[in-house]
Amino acid sequence: MKNIVILGSTGSIGQNTLEVIRHFPDKFGVIGLSTNSNIDILYRQIKEFHPRFVCVGDAEAGKKLEQRLNSHTRLFLGKEGLEHLIANSGAEMIVLAISGSGALRPLLKSIEVTKHIALANKEALVMAGPIIMDKAKKQKVKLIPIDSEQSAIWQCLDGGGPDKLKNIYLTASGGPFWKTAQRNLRNVPINKVLKHPRWKMGKKISVDSATLMNKGLEILETMFLFNIPCDKIKILIHPEAIIHSMVEFIDGVIKAVLSATDMRIPIQYALSYPERLPNSLSSLDFYKLKELHFQAPDFKKFPCLGLAYQVAKELGTMPCVFNTANEVCVDEFLKQRINFISIPKIIEKVLDRHHNKKEPDLADIQKADAWARNEAHKVIAERLLKKS
Amino acid sequence: MKNIVILGSTGSIGQNTLEVIRHFPDKFGVIGLSTNSNIDILYRQIKEFHPRFVCVGDAEAGKKLEQRLNSHTRLFLGKEGLEHLIANSGAEMIVLAISGSGALRPLLKSIEVTKHIALANKEALVMAGPIIMDKAKKQKVKLIPIDSEQSAIWQCLDGGGPDKLKNIYLTASGGPFWKTAQRNLRNVPINKVLKHPRWKMGKKISVDSATLMNKGLEILETMFLFNIPCDKIKILIHPEAIIHSMVEFIDGVIKAVLSATDMRIPIQYALSYPERLPNSLSSLDFYKLKELHFQAPDFKKFPCLGLAYQVAKELGTMPCVFNTANEVCVDEFLKQRINFISIPKIIEKVLDRHHNKKEPDLADIQKADAWARNEAHKVIAERLLKKS
Repeated sequence: MKNIVILGSTGSIGQNTLEVIRHFPDKFGVIGLSTNSNIDILYRQIKEFHPRFVCVGDAEAGKKLEQRLNSHTRLFLGKEGLEHLIANSGAEMIVLAISGSGALRPLLKSIEVTKHIALANKEALVMAGPIIMDKAKKQKVKLIPIDSEQSAIWQCLDGGGPDKLKNIYLTASGGPFWKTAQRNLRNVPINKVLKHPRWKMGKKISVDSATLMNKGLEILETMFLFNIPCDKIKILIHPEAIIHSMVEFIDGVIKAVLSATDMRIPIQYALSYPERLPNSLSSLDFYKLKELHFQAPDFKKFPCLGLAYQVAKELGTMPCVFNTANEVCVDEFLKQRINFISIPKIIEKVLDRHHNKKEPDLADIQKADAWARNEAHKVIAERLLKKS
Repeated sequence: MKNIVILGSTGSIGQNTLEVIRHFPDKFGVIGLSTNSNIDILYRQIKEFHPRFVCVGDAEAGKKLEQRLNSHTRLFLGKEGLEHLIANSGAEMIVLAISGSGALRPLLKSIEVTKHIALANKEALVMAGPIIMDKAKKQKVKLIPIDSEQSAIWQCLDGGGPDKLKNIYLTASGGPFWKTAQRNLRNVPINKVLKHPRWKMGKKISVDSATLMNKGLEILETMFLFNIPCDKIKILIHPEAIIHSMVEFIDGVIKAVLSATDMRIPIQYALSYPERLPNSLSSLDFYKLKELHFQAPDFKKFPCLGLAYQVAKELGTMPCVFNTANEVCVDEFLKQRINFISIPKIIEKVLDRHHNKKEPDLADIQKADAWARNEAHKVIAERLLKKS
């Protein structure tokens, strides 16, 4: 029985993780759960999985939950509470399913207390990749990716080192707009942006998939996770999203990992690794599949991709600023304060204004994060002013 | 420096193996070479690679070569000579590139004297798979496949056992006739049969690719090499021949190995395993590739496939008879004594007449081989008689 903590259990990845766990009651036990504020879903999860520890980020929501809990489950509140949960759970594996930059501190804390982390969050790695990877290496912690692309690369490498790599083909479905003409992107409505053709996902990652920012973040994630330079990472548009990524070795052999587009598949493997467990999830039928398509990405239509490569070359605090500016933009876009094509423009402007700090420590990262958040809002205000 | 013996060095696989070795003079040394009768090519290979031992199967051809050799190279003659070469070479690796059933005895001998065998021959495995695999296991010999499909499966498995397998997708380019209507196959001329759309190969395997007998033999090869039942092996027509095979695990994850259609790639990996070495062989460009296609095979048009599954269920001496009858048919087809569509009909007739011996020993296999050779000729004679 592997005792598991899920940080961010009420989000899409968190819920999928619990679905996997539900099917293997002898293999996995839930010892801790956390949410920011979604206490109704959390309460249902507590009733079903009986965790010893839970945490609610929003203190007020947490207090509402408190009245409904019995004595078996200990409740923590807020960011500090989450760190206490991580420190005290005794988890054999922590699943990091918190989305966005808020995952950075919980991830760093998790590295101190467990040996296996299943990582669904990419933003923390983008912000502070070298710090995280260094710390994980020192503490001998295995970072097991859950993201379908990173999981595919990791499975293709199968323990092989980056010295054997010629290229990584990071595949991208292309999002909802890979066929849309650039001129038609200006005023695409939110509902079209959120309607991903292949994956059902949270709102943040759905917007990132539409701008291809998600793939941009993955370029940085891949660099850090697998310790390879960005010029060895090729983006490949593959609309069927069946091949989740490919690794090309120095001898010309390419390995690919394919599966149905169901996040439970990479989640299950992250949980069961190095074992594989049978399941009844949908599998691919190549007799019906008939065709797979590939295409180079359009850097002009999706400027976030080019920005990602630029940031990947500069490093320092630039990846953090890149991510934070995007988080502000996605938030403002979802609140309908900016339009779709403004997102890369605002990010670019913030990057332009940033004084890069090379080899940053955690304090530098946090400073850059706060600066970028502020600066992105400033750029947005300037643009509104200009328009009016 | 790995000392290598190549059995069948003048054939297509043998020559490709030497091309690989030529590029890594610090890694690989040639200690022995053999041919059946092609002494001109063998002589050129001796001049370039300076093996200590050579063998010529045909004694007369061998004597002609003898006059041209210097004292550095020791010459063996005939089948017995080949066994002496294998026993005395002290090879760290033996590459078995002899085509057809003649490879069975050299393979069994090789298992006794070396720990690494790179196996390009599939007929020996088809004839006597359980005997070979048992012996290899007892002697702790690694059988490393060179065949592109088997190499792909082996690389996908990466040490994982057959208990983790749900299915193997054994890909097939479909040969030159996958689009040809069945009614047009009766009188296809030899030059069309030998013109494979993707691979440059020897004559025997080119005919086998056109009848899909090659894939039929590979069903049996895959069963024995990876110890899985035939109902887990699915044939998948994939005309681009870019995906060399795929493995589906019990959790729904599929791993695929892809590369340019160049036999030097799997040969190089068999030689360098577990290392990978850089090379300048052509690599795939997915930006240009654009599409991959898949299709179920047509069992009616290519009856050899159905026969292979039938034989794979019956086992015993049936696989040997299946292979031997095919060898006779291919030979007679190349001599223009039978037409293309007769090949599966004759094989089926021979199989029908065979009294299967379950769990055969080597003597039983040899008896079945001789019987099938004789019986196939008898069937062919009967058919000619009927026509006239």
